[in-house]
Amino acid sequence: MTHVDPYFRKLTGNYLFSEISRQVAQFQAIHPEKRLIRLGIGDVTRPLPAAVVEAMTAAAAEQGTPAGFHGYGPEQGYPFLREAIALHDYQDRGIHVDPDEIFVSDGAKSDCGGICDLFAVGNTVTLCDPVYSVYLDTNVMAGRAGEFDPATGRWSGLLYLPCTAENDFVPAPPAEQADLIYLCFPANPTGAAANRAQLQAWVDYANRHDSILLFDGAYEAFVTTPGVPRSIFELPGARTCAIEFRSFSKTAGFTGTRCAYTVIPRELEREGVSLRRLWARRQATKTNGVCYVVQRGAQAVYTPAGRAQVAENLAYYRRNAQTLRAGLTQAGLTVYGGVDSPYLWVKTPKKQTSQDFFRLLLEEAGVVTTPGSGFGPHGEGYIRLTSFGEAGETQEAAARIAALL
Amino acid sequence: MTHVDPYFRKLTGNYLFSEISRQVAQFQAIHPEKRLIRLGIGDVTRPLPAAVVEAMTAAAAEQGTPAGFHGYGPEQGYPFLREAIALHDYQDRGIHVDPDEIFVSDGAKSDCGGICDLFAVGNTVTLCDPVYSVYLDTNVMAGRAGEFDPATGRWSGLLYLPCTAENDFVPAPPAEQADLIYLCFPANPTGAAANRAQLQAWVDYANRHDSILLFDGAYEAFVTTPGVPRSIFELPGARTCAIEFRSFSKTAGFTGTRCAYTVIPRELEREGVSLRRLWARRQATKTNGVCYVVQRGAQAVYTPAGRAQVAENLAYYRRNAQTLRAGLTQAGLTVYGGVDSPYLWVKTPKKQTSQDFFRLLLEEAGVVTTPGSGFGPHGEGYIRLTSFGEAGETQEAAARIAALL
Repeated sequence: MTHVDPYFRKLTGNYLFSEISRQVAQFQAIHPEKRLIRLGIGDVTRPLPAAVVEAMTAAAAEQGTPAGFHGYGPEQGYPFLREAIALHDYQDRGIHVDPDEIFVSDGAKSDCGGICDLFAVGNTVTLCDPVYSVYLDTNVMAGRAGEFDPATGRWSGLLYLPCTAENDFVPAPPAEQADLIYLCFPANPTGAAANRAQLQAWVDYANRHDSILLFDGAYEAFVTTPGVPRSIFELPGARTCAIEFRSFSKTAGFTGTRCAYTVIPRELEREGVSLRRLWARRQATKTNGVCYVVQRGAQAVYTPAGRAQVAENLAYYRRNAQTLRAGLTQAGLTVYGGVDSPYLWVKTPKKQTSQDFFRLLLEEAGVVTTPGSGFGPHGEGYIRLTSFGEAGETQEAAARIAALL
Repeated sequence: MTHVDPYFRKLTGNYLFSEISRQVAQFQAIHPEKRLIRLGIGDVTRPLPAAVVEAMTAAAAEQGTPAGFHGYGPEQGYPFLREAIALHDYQDRGIHVDPDEIFVSDGAKSDCGGICDLFAVGNTVTLCDPVYSVYLDTNVMAGRAGEFDPATGRWSGLLYLPCTAENDFVPAPPAEQADLIYLCFPANPTGAAANRAQLQAWVDYANRHDSILLFDGAYEAFVTTPGVPRSIFELPGARTCAIEFRSFSKTAGFTGTRCAYTVIPRELEREGVSLRRLWARRQATKTNGVCYVVQRGAQAVYTPAGRAQVAENLAYYRRNAQTLRAGLTQAGLTVYGGVDSPYLWVKTPKKQTSQDFFRLLLEEAGVVTTPGSGFGPHGEGYIRLTSFGEAGETQEAAARIAALL
């Protein structure tokens, strides 16, 4: 008879954001009169830049003509997009990344999950705590975790890196051997940005220990502080130890359009195997690439018009972050993040639990947040707010929360 | 140090179609004057139906407005698309499938690969021989194969089902216990269609043995022979043993647009676990759903205009299949498939190997095919041709091949 994957079965509950959606929907059903302001899930609200819409419209028209029709594309992505990414996101910033080191995909989530396929089950996985749950859940599914301990909220067999106010939410490399190291800076959920010295310590550790840094740079576009790296490949030595995940979701409003990319340098090998070639084989076997119309849309992000429109959207979200930071700080809350990041990490008042403060804000202020404990034990005592809301609603949310405290 | 996945490393060579592309590109580079006709890879050539282009254009415009903007969608797909699929592809044909049993994805290839995640490594996998290489390769990566034997062209630990002219390329269930059973009918690569009795035997086997049928119905739209099932769920008992993969690629020309779906009935459980719920968890953790614009395009396939346009395209490809069947048969070749299928499975003349006949057709006729041996040992002595080419080129290909023999 058929046996179900034993690791997969260990995963308890639902995917974090599905679970929150469920709680919010339940509340809304009971209180249909309440107008909720949603600053929980990190979804954007600004429309697609006009340049992107124009490019997608033109590409859709092409797809309707025999001469312009595109069938299966290269699994790695069209050269027009890979070249634009290499030029604008890397080479123009003095970073060495070539187009054939770039793999276009339908989302950073797909890539963060899929990357597990390249590595043996026995590798030790290191994660920040709190952390974006996808890194954890996909490794539980892959059999790299032992057992979940409800008392500690942790899995055995994983190495957790506490991210606390004491270390500015940027952990130092551990004393132990870690093989697969997930890092996300600017961080989700804490909104912390790692500086050059902090990231260099990780690159040096990884090269010394033959580890792989799985670097999630989904929020790099929000960096404004001079000297804060926007790519792991700004650090010397990263090309022999790092894989970088990037996305058009938060930068250009592609959360519902689905386009991202992963960078694997030619130099990155383990046990004599090129990880770039292994990923190429994985992608060719398990995907058929990304929609042509979407790739044309992503390419338009790099046109002069596209870049100007993206900059406007980013400025809009940054203003939201400032609004929230100022409003909540003034209301007496302790607020982290929201500077080089779209996320604000807010300490719950009066030692409330994350879940209690989340429910309070939902029920009394009608503001949807994410309870920090959902991201890991060290997220307890915090909630996450995003700056991706509509500007007026964001202002109102800050006022509603302030009025409640 | 980091260890590479030991199973993945076993995969020899490139993904089949990448390798053929490489050989063809190499030949074309040496002979730039030759006008090649490509009937190898199963890519379509007809443009997207006008109804699909219109829907995608309208959806792209929506995405450019604050009020019409869609961010993250449901990981399982939008209800508007799942309801259209359930109604038109199943309920209108008297087949019981509900919208919440349908999971929209970016491709049947992604789903065929991803489904491996749900099952324990120790399950016995059964495959047709010859077979679409994705089923094989993803199971090798997942650790369900032993070692590859170059002498036989087979992996130890897998159960192969020879598909030969003697069994009309439709194998009967084996005497042994098979846990995960990949079936694709109408078949890729042989073009064979399984009749009701043949499929019922598989459903009965699977229910008796607690096996799972992984049924790839990517080519169902090409069925014209009365009584040939278009879905595994037409067969009584399938809801307790089958998962069905479907795609808009070949039906509606979505090879470059990327949309497909997988059906997992509520009744399908193993070891007390609902596979539908497990897949929902997998998809929510490893993907963020499919592009909104693409899902609106897929929905348009089911409008009256969309259905009429799709029917025209299918008729076009069917005429191609007839052209190839008639032309090659008249030239003295033995031809299978091409009736309820877009694929023709052609016996090589004079006992040539698949690779020799593939090279001959490439070099002397300028026609790109796929060597049958690439699909498995029992594909040796055959080549695969597709009816997805341009009509004039397809006629010319048949004439060029006939002239050569």
